[in-house]
Amino acid sequence: MKQKPKINNVTTLGQSRLFHIEQLSLQFSNGAEATFERIRARAGKAVMVVALTEQQEILLVSEYAAGTEQYELQCPKGIIEPGEDSLAAANRELAEETGYAARQCRLLQTMRVSPGYFDHQTDLVLATDLYPHTLDSADEPEPPEVIRWSLDRIDELLARQDFSESRSIAAVLLASRALT
Amino acid sequence: MKQKPKINNVTTLGQSRLFHIEQLSLQFSNGAEATFERIRARAGKAVMVVALTEQQEILLVSEYAAGTEQYELQCPKGIIEPGEDSLAAANRELAEETGYAARQCRLLQTMRVSPGYFDHQTDLVLATDLYPHTLDSADEPEPPEVIRWSLDRIDELLARQDFSESRSIAAVLLASRALT
Repeated sequence: MKQKPKINNVTTLGQSRLFHIEQLSLQFSNGAEATFERIRARAGKAVMVVALTEQQEILLVSEYAAGTEQYELQCPKGIIEPGEDSLAAANRELAEETGYAARQCRLLQTMRVSPGYFDHQTDLVLATDLYPHTLDSADEPEPPEVIRWSLDRIDELLARQDFSESRSIAAVLLASRALT
Repeated sequence: MKQKPKINNVTTLGQSRLFHIEQLSLQFSNGAEATFERIRARAGKAVMVVALTEQQEILLVSEYAAGTEQYELQCPKGIIEPGEDSLAAANRELAEETGYAARQCRLLQTMRVSPGYFDHQTDLVLATDLYPHTLDSADEPEPPEVIRWSLDRIDELLARQDFSESRSIAAVLLASRALT
């Protein structure tokens, strides 16, 4: 195991309601010095759900993404609330975004987004044995559009220009792997 | 196709050398108004490489990640330079980080990281028919550790605590899918 660089200094470069840009002064074990930037998000751990229907379809949601300024197709996801565990958060987000809950939930994988710049973690949950269950979500300006996608049409999904979110790609492939 | 929300205003909340935090005031087609934050990165499009040896091993690199403050195992990646295409950038990054180049490169997938917050795009390239070719990289404080991982041991790779980067997970699963 390589010796980690020493963090000599951390400075805040800018902040907003959700984010915090920091600069780190590092000294590596070989003596080299470097300055790295990173972003701290105020939101806690996230959960993403691959929900599978009896017809072997996954439930995807299309929502407006401010980063790309277009509607993006993704697996349902959200922030784990204080006191919630990943499986409870997965079932809550699923009900809020798709109108279904699951009798079976299990953790498939823990994922990170750009660990060079973020600490943010997403727990991926496989949800099966679904039943209709609607929960209102206060934080959505418009209801997400729910799209059912057959697991045997993954190639077609991967070819869609609006299905590019790396955690959702990993999620669908991991679920397909877990189920076959 | 749903009508996109109207962007009424964009304000800069903070900026650094690499990042730029913006606030967007949006009006959705149903009349609802919302304020979203997003981050603009100054770096351009990225490329990630799944490089496969003749022994059906992929080349992974372990590098210090400032976001998680630990060494993270990922597929080689980097920023596409001005005038480069994705395949040339993939071969350059591969040589800089692993000491190999590829005679065959092909685009497997285009991926995004958190499109709700970022516009950043990563082209995933499958590199095969490798040969030794070293390029110096000016921008690394220490050389990355290169680890060869057999494609038939993916489950073990997914179980590693330091292999969690969502694009790398998607990359390895997409390559495995493309090759079998």
